[in-house]
Amino acid sequence: MQLQLNRRSGVPLYRQLAGELREQIVSGTLAEGYRLPPERELAARLEVNRTTVLQAYQQLKDEALIASKVGKGTFVLPRNDSTDGPAAPRPRQTVPSALAAEPTVIRPPWSVLFSDYSNRFTYHDIAAANRAQNGKAIIDFATGSPNPADIPDDLLRAVSLEAFSSHEFDGQPESPIEGFPELRELLAEHMRARGVHCNARNVMVLSGSEQGIDLCVRAFINPGDCVLVEQSTFFPALQSFRSADARIVGVPMDEYGMRTDLLEGYCARFHPKFIYTIPTFQNPTGSTMPAARRKELIDVARKYQCLIIEDDAYGELWYGRPDAGRGGNAKRPVPLKGMENAGYVMYLSTFSKTVTSGLRTGWIVADPHVINRLAALRRMVDQHTSTSSQRICLELLKEGRIAEHVKTLTIAYRKRRDTAVAALEQYARDGMSWNVPEGGYYIWVTLPEGVRSLDVLDRCRTKGVTFMPGSVFDVDETDDSHIRLNIVHPDAGDIERGIRMICESVG
Amino acid sequence: MQLQLNRRSGVPLYRQLAGELREQIVSGTLAEGYRLPPERELAARLEVNRTTVLQAYQQLKDEALIASKVGKGTFVLPRNDSTDGPAAPRPRQTVPSALAAEPTVIRPPWSVLFSDYSNRFTYHDIAAANRAQNGKAIIDFATGSPNPADIPDDLLRAVSLEAFSSHEFDGQPESPIEGFPELRELLAEHMRARGVHCNARNVMVLSGSEQGIDLCVRAFINPGDCVLVEQSTFFPALQSFRSADARIVGVPMDEYGMRTDLLEGYCARFHPKFIYTIPTFQNPTGSTMPAARRKELIDVARKYQCLIIEDDAYGELWYGRPDAGRGGNAKRPVPLKGMENAGYVMYLSTFSKTVTSGLRTGWIVADPHVINRLAALRRMVDQHTSTSSQRICLELLKEGRIAEHVKTLTIAYRKRRDTAVAALEQYARDGMSWNVPEGGYYIWVTLPEGVRSLDVLDRCRTKGVTFMPGSVFDVDETDDSHIRLNIVHPDAGDIERGIRMICESVG
Repeated sequence: MQLQLNRRSGVPLYRQLAGELREQIVSGTLAEGYRLPPERELAARLEVNRTTVLQAYQQLKDEALIASKVGKGTFVLPRNDSTDGPAAPRPRQTVPSALAAEPTVIRPPWSVLFSDYSNRFTYHDIAAANRAQNGKAIIDFATGSPNPADIPDDLLRAVSLEAFSSHEFDGQPESPIEGFPELRELLAEHMRARGVHCNARNVMVLSGSEQGIDLCVRAFINPGDCVLVEQSTFFPALQSFRSADARIVGVPMDEYGMRTDLLEGYCARFHPKFIYTIPTFQNPTGSTMPAARRKELIDVARKYQCLIIEDDAYGELWYGRPDAGRGGNAKRPVPLKGMENAGYVMYLSTFSKTVTSGLRTGWIVADPHVINRLAALRRMVDQHTSTSSQRICLELLKEGRIAEHVKTLTIAYRKRRDTAVAALEQYARDGMSWNVPEGGYYIWVTLPEGVRSLDVLDRCRTKGVTFMPGSVFDVDETDDSHIRLNIVHPDAGDIERGIRMICESVG
Repeated sequence: MQLQLNRRSGVPLYRQLAGELREQIVSGTLAEGYRLPPERELAARLEVNRTTVLQAYQQLKDEALIASKVGKGTFVLPRNDSTDGPAAPRPRQTVPSALAAEPTVIRPPWSVLFSDYSNRFTYHDIAAANRAQNGKAIIDFATGSPNPADIPDDLLRAVSLEAFSSHEFDGQPESPIEGFPELRELLAEHMRARGVHCNARNVMVLSGSEQGIDLCVRAFINPGDCVLVEQSTFFPALQSFRSADARIVGVPMDEYGMRTDLLEGYCARFHPKFIYTIPTFQNPTGSTMPAARRKELIDVARKYQCLIIEDDAYGELWYGRPDAGRGGNAKRPVPLKGMENAGYVMYLSTFSKTVTSGLRTGWIVADPHVINRLAALRRMVDQHTSTSSQRICLELLKEGRIAEHVKTLTIAYRKRRDTAVAALEQYARDGMSWNVPEGGYYIWVTLPEGVRSLDVLDRCRTKGVTFMPGSVFDVDETDDSHIRLNIVHPDAGDIERGIRMICESVG
């Protein structure tokens, strides 16, 4: 097995390694059943960190190219995806069609055909890998979605039946690209209640808030353009920037989010096209930017004529006033979009975190210049958000039904946070620390010095508990001293036990 | 007004002109209320065809940058979209916030910030321009959607209520990226009935078939890559290829679609990454490729290792056996995907043309290599098609309900075609000719020599009837001798009168 890594390349070593291995597997150089070298051995041979090999192998496992068998090693899987053949069994003797009689037809040379854009894309799905873990029950702090029990089944059924039995809704007609006017109006009203001055023409309904990131990338990013992000951030956004060949630069963070005191230096040096930020209940760190930082961020962005994408997926989920004696905001944080009115901020949010991701409905609030451009681009993407989803969201927003559900949710989430923090206080090993989030899904845990998140994850998976390692969110993919716990995903009764198991796995 | 056009550039002159004018309007060089020169005068001054100026002005009208007032000329519109201000009236005397006190804040320099990708995008919405025409009733052969009366309201209501009252469907859960397995299975079965050997893992549910084009462009096109298309084709696909900076080359057509006898020459010369084709009931020409051409297309594509995107949006809508004595296929045409099994063909279809575009649900049938890559890319776009839309489509496919609806539809469409053809036979001017489609939406009319489609359209709009001019679909945007009639959009009772009015407008 020949492998060449380029240490001067900007591409992380683990991705280079995964790429080399992938190429050799896809091309058949490494045949089905080939046993890959053990991680330590390959790491020694290549003179790289063992984590690099671990991550590369994990990547290929997620792509179903290789698999590990306990005690036996890691093997190249059969190419069960290389045929496009009929579902029915193939006839043994006869040749049924002219095509089957041409054994010389060469299959498409996929690796040559795929674009640079799509080759730059790598697909982390550690959450899926976690779920698939041996098929046994697992306490899952990894997946970024709510506990299924918190999805409001009855509410969704009621509003759906209401929407679909109505004759106003006959034929599920085509929607304007920007969304149905009534829904845009209700979303604008919803945003005004959050302190954002806007009206319907500032709002476009999206097929999830990630579509907003994707459309903004298409609308604004030329190859080589710089995007500033929080050093640890939502990794599909990084994927999106990376695929467009943007230069991604991470701004350091502390417990209050992005270090805006450093921002002017970054802007002066890198002249970013935009800053992507999650200022409220950040993913993955759970941090919330105080008002003074928000103002500083806006001032710097304006000065450098740099746009801001404010991702507010979690902003609705404020747990409420902090208990006496505890720090924290006594009021729900006002979005950046509510503090800026010249058009620099493009605000994104979604119903995925408050209702269900199955709705695939989010929205953007932005200057009409942006709305118009995104609508033009979207004409050739999905045209508009599913009419049925829009209609369900319209019913949800009417008469405050969603606000009521969010209230129930945040009361439960606050309890979950308190349970998780209490468990951490009880079981944490020396040197561990964590934030106490004021809303959203995530607790960000710092491991003791010298303890690596991927090692802890390995041990935890064996025990039946998972989380997301910090490297997944890190711009440079090097952070191995943090773990993200999504406290709203596991069953509430499992939180304490899960955290105890994680703390025990720390060493 | 200074204007410079570059005749050597590959960019059509009308787009250069629109771009120059847009820049001057957006930058304020041409102020609100500025009166643009009359079309003839500007055409003479620039030494271009009048059509070029007409098209450029139309483009800017569609973008709401300019407007014509009857008898007064064409004017720059006020910039009513440049503010992002509050919906409430602004206070007159007091300055309510620190931000409002900073009159020095410069608005984002939008034209500098937008990407090359999005600037390459131009937005034709002639159909919308047609609909907006003076607000008066119009016989609309332009819009590419079915007559609202043909959307099966009762069926949609029944299946929706069935789906949403079911407890199987509680909480509208997240879907796998590729779609719910049951729906993929039903779609595979549906495709097998069309003669395409495939199974569920060859199928991905899409948010409309255009999303499939967009994802394939991302997956395969590097800037400068060549895409072969029919000389007249679905224009959003052209937009998608253009935005990715592909080199688009049109292959000549005749009444049987793409001239596959020329294809090898094109492949040898341009080495296309893929061929985009609508072989069945083509948009806009209504033509259908015979089996021999299909085979030739596949053979050439394989030889040059070039992929094929088969867009089959209309393939379901076969009108049935031709009447005795008339030419045409006695059987429903088999898709290219059914004639090729090495993976070169990527097949796209949709429920938009058979049920309603509001569902935003289509599908792709392709090699698992393609499905996997598209799924990875889609992870950062819209993740999956709306759960409610998928569920409705699942119910529609079950128990042959959709097949039944399509049967009703095609009987009605065949009658519409016969009415339209009879009207053409009765009213056509000398030198006009047209195809007789075997399915789908479109009749393609060739105008007498020297008659220009845009002139006819101008006259028709005054009379209250519209269609799409051929230039919209033409790769080079120069075709001015054809018009596309969507015979399924106007009310059936208006077809004869509409066609008579069009024929009268021919001169």
